[in-house]
Amino acid sequence: MSSATAADSERMQKIVSLCKRRGFVFQSSEIYGGLRSAYDYGPMGAELKRNLMNEWWRSMVHSREDVVGLDASIMMHPRVWQASGHLANFADPLVDCKVCGERFRADKAPRAEPGADAPIELADKGRAKAAIERLEKLGHAVERQGKTLVGAKVEARGYVCPNCGSPLLSEERQFNLMFRTSLGPVDPVGDVISTMREAIAEGKDDAGVRAVVEAALSSSAVYLRPETAQAMFVNFLNVQQTMGAKLPFGIAQMGKSFRNEVKVEHFIFRSCEFEQMEMEYFVRPGEGPRSLEYWKEERMRWWRSIGLRDENLRLRAHGPDELAHYSDGCFDVEYQFPWGWDELEGIASRTDYDLNAHSEASGKKLVYFDPEAEDPQTGKKGWRFLPHVIEPAAGATRGVLAVLCDAYDEEPADEEGKGARTVLRLHPRLAPIKAAVLPLVKKDGMPEVARKIVERFFSAGINAKYDEQHAIGRRYARHDEIGTPYAITVDTQTLEDSTVTLRQRDSREQQRIGVEEAVAVVRAALADA
Amino acid sequence: MSSATAADSERMQKIVSLCKRRGFVFQSSEIYGGLRSAYDYGPMGAELKRNLMNEWWRSMVHSREDVVGLDASIMMHPRVWQASGHLANFADPLVDCKVCGERFRADKAPRAEPGADAPIELADKGRAKAAIERLEKLGHAVERQGKTLVGAKVEARGYVCPNCGSPLLSEERQFNLMFRTSLGPVDPVGDVISTMREAIAEGKDDAGVRAVVEAALSSSAVYLRPETAQAMFVNFLNVQQTMGAKLPFGIAQMGKSFRNEVKVEHFIFRSCEFEQMEMEYFVRPGEGPRSLEYWKEERMRWWRSIGLRDENLRLRAHGPDELAHYSDGCFDVEYQFPWGWDELEGIASRTDYDLNAHSEASGKKLVYFDPEAEDPQTGKKGWRFLPHVIEPAAGATRGVLAVLCDAYDEEPADEEGKGARTVLRLHPRLAPIKAAVLPLVKKDGMPEVARKIVERFFSAGINAKYDEQHAIGRRYARHDEIGTPYAITVDTQTLEDSTVTLRQRDSREQQRIGVEEAVAVVRAALADA
Repeated sequence: MSSATAADSERMQKIVSLCKRRGFVFQSSEIYGGLRSAYDYGPMGAELKRNLMNEWWRSMVHSREDVVGLDASIMMHPRVWQASGHLANFADPLVDCKVCGERFRADKAPRAEPGADAPIELADKGRAKAAIERLEKLGHAVERQGKTLVGAKVEARGYVCPNCGSPLLSEERQFNLMFRTSLGPVDPVGDVISTMREAIAEGKDDAGVRAVVEAALSSSAVYLRPETAQAMFVNFLNVQQTMGAKLPFGIAQMGKSFRNEVKVEHFIFRSCEFEQMEMEYFVRPGEGPRSLEYWKEERMRWWRSIGLRDENLRLRAHGPDELAHYSDGCFDVEYQFPWGWDELEGIASRTDYDLNAHSEASGKKLVYFDPEAEDPQTGKKGWRFLPHVIEPAAGATRGVLAVLCDAYDEEPADEEGKGARTVLRLHPRLAPIKAAVLPLVKKDGMPEVARKIVERFFSAGINAKYDEQHAIGRRYARHDEIGTPYAITVDTQTLEDSTVTLRQRDSREQQRIGVEEAVAVVRAALADA
Repeated sequence: MSSATAADSERMQKIVSLCKRRGFVFQSSEIYGGLRSAYDYGPMGAELKRNLMNEWWRSMVHSREDVVGLDASIMMHPRVWQASGHLANFADPLVDCKVCGERFRADKAPRAEPGADAPIELADKGRAKAAIERLEKLGHAVERQGKTLVGAKVEARGYVCPNCGSPLLSEERQFNLMFRTSLGPVDPVGDVISTMREAIAEGKDDAGVRAVVEAALSSSAVYLRPETAQAMFVNFLNVQQTMGAKLPFGIAQMGKSFRNEVKVEHFIFRSCEFEQMEMEYFVRPGEGPRSLEYWKEERMRWWRSIGLRDENLRLRAHGPDELAHYSDGCFDVEYQFPWGWDELEGIASRTDYDLNAHSEASGKKLVYFDPEAEDPQTGKKGWRFLPHVIEPAAGATRGVLAVLCDAYDEEPADEEGKGARTVLRLHPRLAPIKAAVLPLVKKDGMPEVARKIVERFFSAGINAKYDEQHAIGRRYARHDEIGTPYAITVDTQTLEDSTVTLRQRDSREQQRIGVEEAVAVVRAALADA
């Protein structure tokens, strides 16, 4: 932890607060006390997220010859998740600490030597005393030294609680990160009850009962996708054949994914419901490494192009110990969030692992046939092979947070104590509103003129906003806070000479331009990528 | 059923087939045998759906002063669905027929007088004989007359099987249309098993066991939203206050909803996972009826504006028996699908029912305060009241199907037996690809020139497609089938005088234009709404 922690945490709080105050992000179901880790994007947040995702689509699909889009259903056949490994590998062993109550993943807990002393650190003496009483009832004898409990030893499992250091832990329980639900008009609970009644009557133990219950559930079980990527593999043949696509080519998809995260954190950064922007780029065997090089540069270029500052972006190569067994290279695009560097996107070379897994599981050969190429095995013309894959997989939700963090700025007051402001320096293409059109006062025909200007923006397909509430300074401040790049003010002079004031968000500079020019000026800023 | 049924059904089959063949819609998880009622939008379908939804957003949010957007999470707090009535009212009584196996909703089954004769009609004698044997084993005595079984009587419940007319039915079982899943890192199955074991040991009956199971599930149960609308009510105060919105104003949202439909039908028309485009328009009490008039006209105008033909659209007023008890008016926008008139959108006046329900359930007053208006009760200035609501709620997925049905056309061959084609007459704004750029042959520098033209479209943000495969006629045919409004062909003359052939999809007319004009021509067609 660096010394900047307090300031960074305060900065994060301010961003969260602005998100709520200005209609970017609300807690879901707030009037009912909120739902864990679920967020609603308010009027400004919905536009910002939409703009970010549209930029990705434009860059990935609409500006390229070699990538097409896909929009698959969130519910997929359970065998997809069997073949992809998600049903088996997304199951984490979870453990509860008997001392402090922390719930954590066993595989991420601090390692310790079995049999070694494991001192338990509590926050204060009072808690330490209370903990001793609880542990005695559970049959664990420990001694207190101030706020530390000593005498417990690390168990054979070889890890301790990440919060208090306790080795006194519950059994590991499997928990699957995927959300399970039931598809079809048969209520699974009825089946489960009758199945279980039989199993108990037969004298089955917990494991046996669990097995029959799981079997009863599995007939209608479906899972919410934990990633959008698998749909591209499963649809590889459909897309390749209907589009007549030639290698190399990619399939891109944006949309919601769901993970029952053990730990949700950092506002919208890690939540159970989130949005992704993923692309699978299919290449010939052997071309993976070169394509990985291309895509890591291209993706970094894109994140910079939407306005993220260079000093807050970095590429981090995965070490050999981080790589999946099938992968021959992976980079993370990381952003410097207020809490430190964290992942925005992963760009992985996945070889032919996924297409091969689905070919084997489904019995359908997800292969590509090149009639012109020579088959390396037979030496004859006509080669049928499993393409290799490069996957740039970005987080849309965390992309929104990175953009907000990067754009958030506070300007101090001047020498006279005036002019302090908060401003979101969003790229014009990402800004929720491109131009605020403001009558100086609500009379003298100014609203009518301003509304005509707004209409012109609407016709041009540019999201502008008419705004007549409160004094002009307050309106400027509000639009600075939501990142509106331009404010166009209609005043007395407008009625005389058809000019308006154009105010730039970042510099606060004002200039007079003709009413006729307003749309063109804003359009130019949007085109200037 | 009209005499057009066979032709209409054939037309529907052709549309479904084109959707598969040309990359609009695939069966989800097709390589694994498909998932019931789930569909994936291929490269062309993803663009079409996106374009349709973008048009809605542009019309509803970006072209209006009085409507803002929202993008809420799919999982909401369970109390939202309690307050909205979905938890109670979305539960349908389901029944199985003991004769033919049909599963149906009891409340939609054909009514019959209890005690009356109920002849059971089977498809043929063989099935009738088999049915008699099955029924005898179940203790029901009936006689066979040809393929009809007689002797059964309508039971006290007063309805029969909609398929075969049988009154011999299973018990009614409740089934909830909402998808239930479990949020949080505790596995609910473990809890359910231990709870159930206790309940069974205590000798509880099925209903008793069910009650404790439901209680165990409810601690972590969440539901996938069955509509997007409730998020607008729950966020009413957040949106109104952060935006400083004045009545009348609306909140619009697009996105996925999920219903465990008993009957899925008509391709993407009724499926369990679907997309909606909903808006809640808040008005003063008493202004609902006038606003309803406005919105029903406005919404019809919009469906026409995206290209649906007038003769295939109609407004249908709900009769008093169809209206919810709180509603004082509702219209359906219906489209004439190949199977008949069916709902595209509902436009309902919902009074203050929803805001009132959530105010009472949450204890938060979802009211609007107008400091200028006189309170009708006290006669004093300053009025606090529950706004009334008009809700235009459209189906995006079924909108896509309506657009495809409306655009699908077959042109017969000419007298020489040539020129037959299938063409999708999509509105240019909805077309997945706006312009196909085609080198006549793959040599002589034509591909290079064509690619430069495509680049110009990309820069202009217009989705164009370079396409060099197969003979030019086949390429025209392919682009006719996916609805590309313009084809731009680069030929020998292009290399000499920088002109290209512009072919119009609908008329097949070709004209020569300058290379420089290509983008402008297409852009003009897109602006021409």
